[in-house]
Amino acid sequence: MPNITVELLAGRSLEQRKAFARAVTEHAVEILGARPQDVRMVFNEISPDVVANGGVLASEDASRAGVLAALEKR
Amino acid sequence: MPNITVELLAGRSLEQRKAFARAVTEHAVEILGARPQDVRMVFNEISPDVVANGGVLASEDASRAGVLAALEKR
Amino acid sequence: MPNITVELLAGRSLEQRKAFARAVTEHAVEILGARPQDVRMVFNEISPDVVANGGVLASEDASRAGVLAALEKR
Amino acid sequence: MPNITVELLAGRSLEQRKAFARAVTEHAVEILGARPQDVRMVFNEISPDVVANGGVLASEDASRAGVLAALEKR
Amino acid sequence: MPNITVELLAGRSLEQRKAFARAVTEHAVEILGARPQDVRMVFNEISPDVVANGGVLASEDASRAGVLAALEKR
Amino acid sequence: MPNITVELLAGRSLEQRKAFARAVTEHAVEILGARPQDVRMVFNEISPDVVANGGVLASEDASRAGVLAALEKR
Repeated sequence: MPNITVELLAGRSLEQRKAFARAVTEHAVEILGARPQDVRMVFNEISPDVVANGGVLASEDASRAGVLAALEKR
Repeated sequence: MPNITVELLAGRSLEQRKAFARAVTEHAVEILGARPQDVRMVFNEISPDVVANGGVLASEDASRAGVLAALEKR
Repeated sequence: MPNITVELLAGRSLEQRKAFARAVTEHAVEILGARPQDVRMVFNEISPDVVANGGVLASEDASRAGVLAALEKR
Repeated sequence: MPNITVELLAGRSLEQRKAFARAVTEHAVEILGARPQDVRMVFNEISPDVVANGGVLASEDASRAGVLAALEKR
Repeated sequence: MPNITVELLAGRSLEQRKAFARAVTEHAVEILGARPQDVRMVFNEISPDVVANGGVLASEDASRAGVLAALEKR
Repeated sequence: MPNITVELLAGRSLEQRKAFARAVTEHAVEILGARPQDVRMVFNEISPDVVANGGVLASEDASRAGVLAALEKR
């Protein structure tokens, strides 16, 4: 531990996952005092048609259209 | 919050997910006093060959054959 | 299944949890076609000093002070 | 309950999942005193490019190459 | 990995948790081909007033009274 | 989203949780392109007698005694 789960919309690249895992692991060592080898991270990629905010699926939520469009361009 | 995760067998339609997210969000507001925009729901769809009850995978469990058949018809 | 996890700020009453479990279970039966005995719900109560939004713990987030005050009154 | 979630690298066979679910359910009954029908297990299969240890994705981690190669052979 | 989470009613002894962790880890090695040091298990102990089956909290569910009584005797 | 869960041994201070939440949120914005207000983090604090590695509870694992002693001093 720490055992970190990152639930996020699908669409990030391998390079983004690598950079995020590296950066967060460094902070877990510096701030939380963890041993590097004990820091574990799993990305749980979610499709916008299985997540809802305020009762509206993200795939049908106009206020999130910009977020989704940015992810699809990658 | 509430941050609600719904683990369920795959096979429900988009319309079912939309209706369920809307209904549960309304109850979270009315019963739990949540703000609508704070209610988040994620559906985690599960295949019957990765879930077991009583040590038997759902895909091989005769007592659940009716449930699975109903989902496949959709 | 459905196996439903509800992560929420601590402070709701037993009556609220009972009413919410009953209402959501009814919707799971009506909307998702679940068998009542298969619907499971776990409430995971969270303290405001272990959850952060936008990098700020809820216990130090002025914009959530109203939410927390309402929960503490119960 | 117990409600058991097994997060593991993808690649195990159906037979392995069946045998593991059966064995763990027996132990839950014998050691934990559970009723067999209450023991539930979900396998959450993970791809090596979404899990990191020590800040390094498993798909790029030389020290885990043997583990991955063994899974791919199946 | 495997990273195993065991959600269960509170009330099991330290000895039960130790024996269960040891037995399941052995099966993960034998059946799933895991390395012993990679098998991780977390027990998530749940109170009967935060879990509902079929819309009824376990603490108010007569059909589970026997299970709860057995746990309380320990 | 991202919705980040950090499972870790109990014993970190409020200041450590604040600093870690802030740092990780910044990286989620910079590296993953998230909106700050969408980044959510929950710390799930675990006691060493409910987590096992290699079949041995952390509370009885001599190789982790240093980690636990450091947490208890805080």
